[in-house]
Amino acid sequence: MSDPLFSRVALIGIGLIGSSLARVMAREKLASEVIISTRSESTLARAEELGLGDRYYLDAAQAVKGADLVILCVPVGACGAVAKHIGPHLAEGAIVTDVGSVKASVIEAVAPHIPPHAHLIAGHPVAGTEYSGPDAGFASLFENRRCILTPDETCDAAALGKLTEFWQGCGSMVETMDASHHDLVLAVVSHLPHIIAYNIVGTADDLETVTKSEVIKYSASGFRDFTRLAASDPTMWRDVCLHNKDAILEMLSRFSEDLSALQRAIRWGDGEALFSLFTRTRGIRQQLIDAGQESPAPNFGRQNEAGEPAQ
Amino acid sequence: MSDPLFSRVALIGIGLIGSSLARVMAREKLASEVIISTRSESTLARAEELGLGDRYYLDAAQAVKGADLVILCVPVGACGAVAKHIGPHLAEGAIVTDVGSVKASVIEAVAPHIPPHAHLIAGHPVAGTEYSGPDAGFASLFENRRCILTPDETCDAAALGKLTEFWQGCGSMVETMDASHHDLVLAVVSHLPHIIAYNIVGTADDLETVTKSEVIKYSASGFRDFTRLAASDPTMWRDVCLHNKDAILEMLSRFSEDLSALQRAIRWGDGEALFSLFTRTRGIRQQLIDAGQESPAPNFGRQNEAGEPAQ
Repeated sequence: MSDPLFSRVALIGIGLIGSSLARVMAREKLASEVIISTRSESTLARAEELGLGDRYYLDAAQAVKGADLVILCVPVGACGAVAKHIGPHLAEGAIVTDVGSVKASVIEAVAPHIPPHAHLIAGHPVAGTEYSGPDAGFASLFENRRCILTPDETCDAAALGKLTEFWQGCGSMVETMDASHHDLVLAVVSHLPHIIAYNIVGTADDLETVTKSEVIKYSASGFRDFTRLAASDPTMWRDVCLHNKDAILEMLSRFSEDLSALQRAIRWGDGEALFSLFTRTRGIRQQLIDAGQESPAPNFGRQNEAGEPAQ
Repeated sequence: MSDPLFSRVALIGIGLIGSSLARVMAREKLASEVIISTRSESTLARAEELGLGDRYYLDAAQAVKGADLVILCVPVGACGAVAKHIGPHLAEGAIVTDVGSVKASVIEAVAPHIPPHAHLIAGHPVAGTEYSGPDAGFASLFENRRCILTPDETCDAAALGKLTEFWQGCGSMVETMDASHHDLVLAVVSHLPHIIAYNIVGTADDLETVTKSEVIKYSASGFRDFTRLAASDPTMWRDVCLHNKDAILEMLSRFSEDLSALQRAIRWGDGEALFSLFTRTRGIRQQLIDAGQESPAPNFGRQNEAGEPAQ
C-alpha cells in the first residue's frame, strides 16, 4: 500500500467545505494525520464529536505546526488575519491553499504573510450546498465538480502537482486559471445568482399587499427555487460581496440593463422580444444537462412531501 | 361504486397541465369520458398514442359538445379565441374553467363568450415543471399543491362545489380568491421569479469576457438553479407577461429598487446591510420547508451524475 499523499494536513475552519474535506480525506486516505482548528469552541467540540480529525486546536498557529498542507476553510474576509497568525509557524515546504469563492483579494491578503520557504497556491472547489457547519459536510461533495487553482507565475511546479493530485483524490477535475479571470467567471456563475436570489426573497418578504403565508403557500410556482441560494451562509456571502466588488458590480450593471430592456418589452407588449429571449434561455439548460452539470429530472428531482419523487 | 363526478370532460389543450389532468382523471375515475382537443395535428396524434382520452378532435367546438366540464389548458393569450369558438356549442349547465397563471385578463376575454346556461369559473392549479407537451404530464402533479379558483359574486354555488370536488379529487387543496388578488400574488411568487431567471440566463449568455463553456462548467456554483425556470414554455410565459402586465411591472419595480440598494451596499462596503439581508432571507426557506412546500434535502435532493443522491 502506498503512503498517503500528505503526512499532516491542517484544516483551518471546519464548516461545510472543511468538514467535507475531512470526510473525503479519511475515505480516500489522502493524509496520515488531519489536524482541525477553528476559533469557535462549540464548533471544535462538534468536530471532535464527529471524529473528523486526529487533533483539535482553537489556535490555528498550533494546528499548522509540521503540516505539509494547510487549507484555509474560512470566509474570504478572514483569510488575511489567519495567514498573518499562522505565517511564522509554517513548516519548510508547506503548501498553503484556501477554498474561497474569490481569489485575487485572498491572494493579496494572504501572500505577504507566507514565508519564502512555504508555497501559496490559492484554490476554489466549485461545489457546495445551502447548508453550513461541520454537520453539513459529506465525502462526495467534490465528486465530478471542478476545483480551480490560481497559481501565479512563480509557483513551484512540484507543489502545484501535489495539490492537483490532492483535489483529484477528492474526486474533482482540477483546472488552473488566472485569479482575476476566476473572479470574473465566478461573479457571473455564482455571485450574481446568489445576490439576485437574496434580493428577490427580500423583495417578496417586504410586500404589504401579499401576505407571507401566501408567498409560502404558493411558492412551488417558482419562488421556492430562489430560496435555496438565499439560505446560504450570510458571513460567507457578505465577504464575497465585499471582496469581489468590481466584478460583481459589473455583472449587476449588465443584469440591470438587460432587466430594463425586458421590463420595457413587457410595458410595450413586445411579444416577439419576450418569446425570443424565453426560447434562447431554454437551450442553455439542455447544454448544462448534456454536460453532466444538472439533473434532467423535472423540478430538480425534488421529492414530494410523501418522500416519493414527483415523477 | 359511485358514478364519476363528471360524465364528459373536454380538455382543450393537452400539454403538461392537460395531459396531467387526463392521467389523474383516469387514475381517480373522475370522468366517464375524456375528450381531448388541440389544434396541433401532431400533438393530437401523440395524445392518442399515449391513450390520454376517449375521443380526439382538432376542432374544440366538436370536443365540447355534451361535456359537463370544459377545461381550457391553453396559454392564457389563447383563451379568448377558444372561448369565442366553443361558446355556441356549450351544453346546458356546462362548467367552463381554465388553468392559466393569470386570472383577471382571462375572465375578461372569456366571459363574454360563455352563454347564460353555462358556468364560467376561472381556476389555476399552482403546480408545474419546466417541461411541456403531452409526454411531460404525470398523475401526481397536483398532489399537495394548491388550486386557486376565482369565482365572481354571481357564481353558481353548486357548480363551484362540483369544481372544488374535482380538484380535490386530483389531490389539490382548493382555495378561492379574488381574481385581481390572485394576479398580484402570482406576480410575486411565480411571474417575477420566472422573469428574473430568464433575465439572468440571458445576461450570462451574452457575456464576451466569460465563455459559454465556462458558464456551463461552473454552473453548479449557483447559476444552474435559475436555468430550470428559464427552461419553461416560452409561449406560456410570453402570454403571462403580456396579460399580467400591471402587477408584473409593479413587482419588477420593487425588485429593481431593492437591487439598487443592495448594489449600493456592495459599492460602499456596507457589510452590516449585506449581512442583515442575507440572514433574514435564510429564515424564509426554513418556513417553506416547515410548510411542506420544499424539500429539506441539500441541493433540492438533486442526483449526481452517477445517479446517487448528493448526500
